[in-house]
Amino acid sequence: MSTFLDFSFRCGDKVYKKILGEIEEELLILEEDLLAWVNTDINFIKQPLKEMILAGGKRLRPAMVLAASRFGQYDFENVRQLAVSVELIHTATLIHDDIIDDSPLRRGIPTIQSRLGKDVAVFAGDFLFSKVFELYAYSEHFDLLRIVAKVMYQICEGELKQREDLFNTELTFKDYIFRIRRKTAMLFALSAELGARASKAPEKTVRALHKYGMNVGIAFQIVDDMLDFTSDNNKLGKPVGADIREGVITLPTIYALKHSKQREFLKEILANKSADEEEIEEAIEIVKNSGGLDYAKGVAEKYVQKAQQSIAELPDIPIKKVLANISSLVTNRTK
Amino acid sequence: MSTFLDFSFRCGDKVYKKILGEIEEELLILEEDLLAWVNTDINFIKQPLKEMILAGGKRLRPAMVLAASRFGQYDFENVRQLAVSVELIHTATLIHDDIIDDSPLRRGIPTIQSRLGKDVAVFAGDFLFSKVFELYAYSEHFDLLRIVAKVMYQICEGELKQREDLFNTELTFKDYIFRIRRKTAMLFALSAELGARASKAPEKTVRALHKYGMNVGIAFQIVDDMLDFTSDNNKLGKPVGADIREGVITLPTIYALKHSKQREFLKEILANKSADEEEIEEAIEIVKNSGGLDYAKGVAEKYVQKAQQSIAELPDIPIKKVLANISSLVTNRTK
Repeated sequence: MSTFLDFSFRCGDKVYKKILGEIEEELLILEEDLLAWVNTDINFIKQPLKEMILAGGKRLRPAMVLAASRFGQYDFENVRQLAVSVELIHTATLIHDDIIDDSPLRRGIPTIQSRLGKDVAVFAGDFLFSKVFELYAYSEHFDLLRIVAKVMYQICEGELKQREDLFNTELTFKDYIFRIRRKTAMLFALSAELGARASKAPEKTVRALHKYGMNVGIAFQIVDDMLDFTSDNNKLGKPVGADIREGVITLPTIYALKHSKQREFLKEILANKSADEEEIEEAIEIVKNSGGLDYAKGVAEKYVQKAQQSIAELPDIPIKKVLANISSLVTNRTK
Repeated sequence: MSTFLDFSFRCGDKVYKKILGEIEEELLILEEDLLAWVNTDINFIKQPLKEMILAGGKRLRPAMVLAASRFGQYDFENVRQLAVSVELIHTATLIHDDIIDDSPLRRGIPTIQSRLGKDVAVFAGDFLFSKVFELYAYSEHFDLLRIVAKVMYQICEGELKQREDLFNTELTFKDYIFRIRRKTAMLFALSAELGARASKAPEKTVRALHKYGMNVGIAFQIVDDMLDFTSDNNKLGKPVGADIREGVITLPTIYALKHSKQREFLKEILANKSADEEEIEEAIEIVKNSGGLDYAKGVAEKYVQKAQQSIAELPDIPIKKVLANISSLVTNRTK
């Protein structure tokens, strides 16, 4: 089981442990909250939803809510449900994502779609979205609902954009960033903003935290897309190069399409929706040999630097260390 | 194109036309609102979503909001968005339903899943759910959000219950009603309740309208399930007996499983997930010959009567006629 509790990572020659510092205890309380929110009377989905929460995940988004809330009038009870809400949104999109990717595993356990079918996964995800709705209906934070709703439909737009862009070998860096901002980064930005706004941090601080979250999120997704080329089946529950197989063009591929000596051949394979396994594997190798992964790593690091610049603008309180840890973690993760 | 505008139906020896009376003009305004709410910058989904709205549907749920609002301090602007919200929720669930049923047509036009794939349909439905979220965030009706959220997740629970009950030949009348209340009727009840609450109708009136909506909704779904046995491909965009094919046990089948002389044989076919076409057609015939459709019609009529009893409890204002028309329409529809 991989949760925030056993987080450790190497950065340079140091190994960081317990990077979430003082918010770890609060995150433990949220685990119970999450289990309560995903509960349902419908028996056959009860246990799979519970197990999906218990299987962990890094809880980076709730951690951002909690950390950001320290920059205002900090009160755990005031932000507790907001932190739950971003993890519920995240979990709902994972359940729907797994349908599309036909993923057998998530967080090391079988996905809902592989256990109970795609149809069940559709409504299980919807169920969690409705629970987010209910959470806000009973919270004190009606004023924050507008920004939450906006991010929710922008996430959907990002996911839809990804479908629109499938097999499109003309995709630019700008297109890619447009998509991953929506698909991934906006929820990180929202998490940081929610924590800060709810605790009435100054507007300048809210904006810096929002920017921090956005940049961390972009870096996070770039690394995620890189891992698709390098991680093995056991870690991600997907075959290497799943994106290429599905026609999803990500940053390393965009680079290869521009700079690889074999770019014309690569283009041909990628635009062919019925490429065979041999061609797919060739395409993966071309991207790997193109320098696209190093390039993507460099871009991700640039976004981490941007995130760290945003941190520099913040008041100097101990929790800054946690934010810095999270942003370093993003480019050093292996799963 | 089938919309509320060309509604006419035969009841006994009378043909009813323009059953929605004075609210027709308001419904026309809502058409524009709906188009605005489903708008998106993501090009390839923009037109399909628009067409789905333009293809119509009966707009029964918004009609209920508008009609119910007459029982309080009626103000169109005050309930306009609530009426939009219930149609958006309905449309989102249709998009997700079509994924599961693998339906080629909806409202006479190709479904989003058949045009753009299941993965697009998942996030297109999510997009509409998020828009409902946004609609409430910007409305004056925060107090109503709790009942909306509850109905939203209960709809999901109803849909999930349907999956749990697939191929279950032991299903009882009570199980069936539990499921269709959630899956269908609660949104009708919510629609009537929203209109009444927003216009500050007396609590007794709100309760009667809620009961009215619930009973109409139950009757509506029973008839829908009957039409699955009798309607042809052109009207529903599905083959006759799609439910039996998918393992969905509905009221006529529950009756046949108890009363048909061939009930043992029927049970065998229904419990067999890989029954062949010939067996499926036999099962459909057994249900049709069992008296199950007449029985289901009788039950639907009983719920319409219950709905009409709820209307009788309401103050005597002209709009009562519209509510009565809607409830009669439900058992007389042929599509």
